[in-house]
Amino acid sequence: MTQKTMLVISAHSADFVWRAGGAIALYAQRGWNVHVLCLSFGERGESAKMWRQPGMTLEQVKQGRREEAERAAEILGASVSFMDCGDYPLRVDDAALFRIVEVYRTLRPEFVLTHSLKDPYNFDHPLATHLAMEARIIAQAHGHCPEQEVIGAPPVYLFEPHQPEQCEWKPEFFLDISPVWERKRAAFEVMAAQEHLWEYYTRVALQRGVQGVRNSGRKMQYAEAYQCVYPRVSDAF
Amino acid sequence: MTQKTMLVISAHSADFVWRAGGAIALYAQRGWNVHVLCLSFGERGESAKMWRQPGMTLEQVKQGRREEAERAAEILGASVSFMDCGDYPLRVDDAALFRIVEVYRTLRPEFVLTHSLKDPYNFDHPLATHLAMEARIIAQAHGHCPEQEVIGAPPVYLFEPHQPEQCEWKPEFFLDISPVWERKRAAFEVMAAQEHLWEYYTRVALQRGVQGVRNSGRKMQYAEAYQCVYPRVSDAF
Amino acid sequence: MTQKTMLVISAHSADFVWRAGGAIALYAQRGWNVHVLCLSFGERGESAKMWRQPGMTLEQVKQGRREEAERAAEILGASVSFMDCGDYPLRVDDAALFRIVEVYRTLRPEFVLTHSLKDPYNFDHPLATHLAMEARIIAQAHGHCPEQEVIGAPPVYLFEPHQPEQCEWKPEFFLDISPVWERKRAAFEVMAAQEHLWEYYTRVALQRGVQGVRNSGRKMQYAEAYQCVYPRVSDAF
Amino acid sequence: MTQKTMLVISAHSADFVWRAGGAIALYAQRGWNVHVLCLSFGERGESAKMWRQPGMTLEQVKQGRREEAERAAEILGASVSFMDCGDYPLRVDDAALFRIVEVYRTLRPEFVLTHSLKDPYNFDHPLATHLAMEARIIAQAHGHCPEQEVIGAPPVYLFEPHQPEQCEWKPEFFLDISPVWERKRAAFEVMAAQEHLWEYYTRVALQRGVQGVRNSGRKMQYAEAYQCVYPRVSDAF
Amino acid sequence: MTQKTMLVISAHSADFVWRAGGAIALYAQRGWNVHVLCLSFGERGESAKMWRQPGMTLEQVKQGRREEAERAAEILGASVSFMDCGDYPLRVDDAALFRIVEVYRTLRPEFVLTHSLKDPYNFDHPLATHLAMEARIIAQAHGHCPEQEVIGAPPVYLFEPHQPEQCEWKPEFFLDISPVWERKRAAFEVMAAQEHLWEYYTRVALQRGVQGVRNSGRKMQYAEAYQCVYPRVSDAF
Amino acid sequence: MTQKTMLVISAHSADFVWRAGGAIALYAQRGWNVHVLCLSFGERGESAKMWRQPGMTLEQVKQGRREEAERAAEILGASVSFMDCGDYPLRVDDAALFRIVEVYRTLRPEFVLTHSLKDPYNFDHPLATHLAMEARIIAQAHGHCPEQEVIGAPPVYLFEPHQPEQCEWKPEFFLDISPVWERKRAAFEVMAAQEHLWEYYTRVALQRGVQGVRNSGRKMQYAEAYQCVYPRVSDAF
Repeated sequence: MTQKTMLVISAHSADFVWRAGGAIALYAQRGWNVHVLCLSFGERGESAKMWRQPGMTLEQVKQGRREEAERAAEILGASVSFMDCGDYPLRVDDAALFRIVEVYRTLRPEFVLTHSLKDPYNFDHPLATHLAMEARIIAQAHGHCPEQEVIGAPPVYLFEPHQPEQCEWKPEFFLDISPVWERKRAAFEVMAAQEHLWEYYTRVALQRGVQGVRNSGRKMQYAEAYQCVYPRVSDAF
Repeated sequence: MTQKTMLVISAHSADFVWRAGGAIALYAQRGWNVHVLCLSFGERGESAKMWRQPGMTLEQVKQGRREEAERAAEILGASVSFMDCGDYPLRVDDAALFRIVEVYRTLRPEFVLTHSLKDPYNFDHPLATHLAMEARIIAQAHGHCPEQEVIGAPPVYLFEPHQPEQCEWKPEFFLDISPVWERKRAAFEVMAAQEHLWEYYTRVALQRGVQGVRNSGRKMQYAEAYQCVYPRVSDAF
Repeated sequence: MTQKTMLVISAHSADFVWRAGGAIALYAQRGWNVHVLCLSFGERGESAKMWRQPGMTLEQVKQGRREEAERAAEILGASVSFMDCGDYPLRVDDAALFRIVEVYRTLRPEFVLTHSLKDPYNFDHPLATHLAMEARIIAQAHGHCPEQEVIGAPPVYLFEPHQPEQCEWKPEFFLDISPVWERKRAAFEVMAAQEHLWEYYTRVALQRGVQGVRNSGRKMQYAEAYQCVYPRVSDAF
Repeated sequence: MTQKTMLVISAHSADFVWRAGGAIALYAQRGWNVHVLCLSFGERGESAKMWRQPGMTLEQVKQGRREEAERAAEILGASVSFMDCGDYPLRVDDAALFRIVEVYRTLRPEFVLTHSLKDPYNFDHPLATHLAMEARIIAQAHGHCPEQEVIGAPPVYLFEPHQPEQCEWKPEFFLDISPVWERKRAAFEVMAAQEHLWEYYTRVALQRGVQGVRNSGRKMQYAEAYQCVYPRVSDAF
Repeated sequence: MTQKTMLVISAHSADFVWRAGGAIALYAQRGWNVHVLCLSFGERGESAKMWRQPGMTLEQVKQGRREEAERAAEILGASVSFMDCGDYPLRVDDAALFRIVEVYRTLRPEFVLTHSLKDPYNFDHPLATHLAMEARIIAQAHGHCPEQEVIGAPPVYLFEPHQPEQCEWKPEFFLDISPVWERKRAAFEVMAAQEHLWEYYTRVALQRGVQGVRNSGRKMQYAEAYQCVYPRVSDAF
Repeated sequence: MTQKTMLVISAHSADFVWRAGGAIALYAQRGWNVHVLCLSFGERGESAKMWRQPGMTLEQVKQGRREEAERAAEILGASVSFMDCGDYPLRVDDAALFRIVEVYRTLRPEFVLTHSLKDPYNFDHPLATHLAMEARIIAQAHGHCPEQEVIGAPPVYLFEPHQPEQCEWKPEFFLDISPVWERKRAAFEVMAAQEHLWEYYTRVALQRGVQGVRNSGRKMQYAEAYQCVYPRVSDAF
């Protein structure tokens, strides 16, 4: 049987850890191929600690962020690749967009995780979402690289932004990540430059866990919440 | 193993046929106990044809609508009960509300189907939704009839109103009803007083079927669409 | 040829002047039967000036407001009736609701003007809108007083509240009231108790006039703006 | 100098502790008169632990909840009163509404705190908000008990519901409650029947604290978030 | 008397047929000049059938789509022009934008039809809408090609997307297209590559027809629905 | 003590006068450094009167608009600078964006005023808002020009567009500008090319003044209204 694939499209190299680390660990544990595509290293906007070191260069920051992301991905059980498109601001031209299309066509993911549709604190995040959606649409087009096979309609789920209400993001699905929580927390700890976020996102997981129980009666302690872009289709509620 | 239950709360006696007949037939076929609770017979607002007959009385209209609903429910495989709360306007006092609470506590449904949150063409529909949600909340309260066992948190799904966009209703879940379509269509035909709706809701099912395919790649021909009130909780997307 | 009718449902006895006086005067001038139904006299919430007079009684305030409204309606060319349902808070039971239904069935209006859907400064206004819409729906039901003829589907337009953005009200239609502006202004001046509103609503009419020009190129100086509840249907844009 | 007053309108007897305990303690500490008006004791919906005790009666539960609320209010520095309107469902008739109006007219608060505008998990909460707003409007009307002095326009702030995004509630104001955090936490611990909420609302305060820093640069650890019903008016941003 | 003009701005070469074919045929029949501007041929995203033919080239697909569009436009009574801006993704630079401005200034349309403001299934559609609106604004600017005459404020109507609720598109106007339905259907049949859409859009027209009746009482069988970008301005409701 | 700074980012050279002239004059009067950054001169879209003069050139229009803006700024007490990015359409590349970032880093404003988030009549306005927000975010990034000091989190307020409801703009803050009204009005009169706007924006100020009173009881005659992008953070309501 073919191994199934889950694709995570992350604006910066650490986003996938805080926001989707549980989903990644859960599906990796189930034997899926989980791939994380980082559009940038987050080398300008989310590396304050490194930039405070004297003599720091852009290449050193990128390298540092890359290594962290690779270690975190390894802990979670995912592979990771980087597009180095810059951040603050992230800028993606059509050539880069078509490389994302190629990722869709090559990996043929069952579903895709990415950022929120809006974020007034971070314009790279909604841009990443836009690209993830636009590349998915192009990958469905028979006339784009017509020699390749088009993809179907993988669902797109939006992980939780830092300040959810300000981003008009609404949790529509709670994923129980209790079985892999320790792994997600271990991945947090790789992110030495963002230690202030460890406790923040541990609390997010606990709050979403309580809410998950409240919405279902299911026993669970830690959860990740997602918004859904497209309607679900099934033969059962 | 205990038989599972699905509850449909319908403002008028025919709503459940057009809007949730496929879900009812599908779950009945799977051996579930499906119960339809009609808050009114629709004796004033949705019985134009009967009222055009000379000498028609309110009781005759109610009786006619009751019989139709019973026959339709039988075709779909559901039981049906009626609260006779009046329609145009539907009016439900707390005593009636507590009877709905009792239905929740007795049937202990896995999930509930009801109307949309708004409907500028029909104020009975959103009132039914409000009551379905309020009764569910009260049924969760330990202090309401404390000698009874409280219920958990059954999801609530909102079926499609007649003019979806005007009701600010959005399809978030498509249920493939292709296997039971003939049964739903047969139930339509019981509704002799509303023949003009047979083709309308056949087309709705076909359109939602096409959209279901478009959102999933799943092969299907007929669908019912639902909006979700509460977030879904699961260990898988 | 039958005279056409326009119906205005106003929560308090002065609302119709500020908010729909131009529409009333325009259609009256065109020979329509224009009727204003005031649910209350506004005797508690909008009669500050009268209440400051020593020895004032509720009946005197009501009588004063009634006389003002009658004089204003006369200037505008409309008839007016009063339901005396109380205000601050307005409270309407089903018996009163059915009297509004009867107004619909008797007058058979081409269209209806009423308040906004929300108003955080005045809860009587959205209640009036709710009643205007609910009565319209019941008047369409064959089973309500089945011996009477049902009505069709008269459009409902919502006139401008005092603080439009706070009421989530949006202008979707601008009515050029320039030809009858003097008449509307004359009706303002009857409202001696609310002199502070004369200039306010003159400025509203001027601003909407400028916006009307901007959205159409039509030459006009004064306008009233309306939100539309139901979609327009026509054979031309 | 006159002591200023802050009014909290709470659906159930514990809501004010979790949701506004910081604001209460802060203003009490500043010498304000802080009054909490509880519409019900939460005797049915939020007293699961008490109901599990054999032989428990409704009066005992009410008494227990009243005592807890009084102790919590005392810790926070507020006075508290109870209207005993029932819960699950809360039901408030016009006589009770007018008692709330009287509270406004007597206390003449500078501002008011209450629940969110929507809550699909708890219909008592938005009803409390509606009443708080409706009573405020009636208290502004010259014709309601015309012998009393009307109130001005006290701002209304909506405290955080249990599942903010599901309630369409958005934080628009963060109040730094760090100086009184220990007091808020102490009040939590009075609520023995709802121990599971202690940690939940401690985490809420920490998350809002981090977000408060992020939106201002202000040094702070704990915050409460509020939505604003009416626009702010001032001579400075 | 000068012939009036209606302008349709269509992202891909077939969109105008499914979405606005009725409006086009109706106004053409009335003697208007109807012009369709296709930003792309839809050669990549909406030409699956052609691409399945062996040896197919991009130029052949474009030529095929052009011919189909020309035939469909002829049946409907419109002229059509093509900008060949590419699709999946459509990309329009300022030079192309200014060519659209020129179309506005040359044709001076009474009103404009284009796509929805959002579409999560197709990013070319909202881009076309954005361009149609931006070009209209620039065409109003005295300083753009100051030697030309500026245009007025032609209304912009948005035709129905494939999955209306997902696009946050709401029908605000129903156009009765019954008199020209056969012509619209004939134009469908030119689109041999998209046969699966013939029945889909026939059902759309029938559903909108039923809804048109429901909202007006007007006798009609087929309709097209439109959302309105700008408020309507008139001297009559 | 350091002088505090307020920054206004204006799409065209006159916007700041109509929309924020009161705030500018008020803070200038209080001794703040107020700087206005005009992204364009408004030389194409908002200079109709100049373009009607025979032989007018683009440079003359720009020069005329620049002089007007400088005179208006002087009256209001602000400095002004121009980026000359073009208008109708405004186009800003990353080099220009980084110049705005530099303005943030150099001026280190306490807060920022700019346009609305949407405007279907003017696409330059929301683009200016986007740039103001994006530049602010980049100015917060340690990795952007790491040798410079990052900025904090200055609040962003959105001034009133020409047709507020159509722009989905909502007043959340009313600034009392009564003490500086004469100065704002004097600045209007510099804008000789847009005389039709003098009365329009005088009426806007009066309407907002009345609403300011209504929302607070504060005595005031003229106001400017603003929407808030980020939540307010404080130790007092």
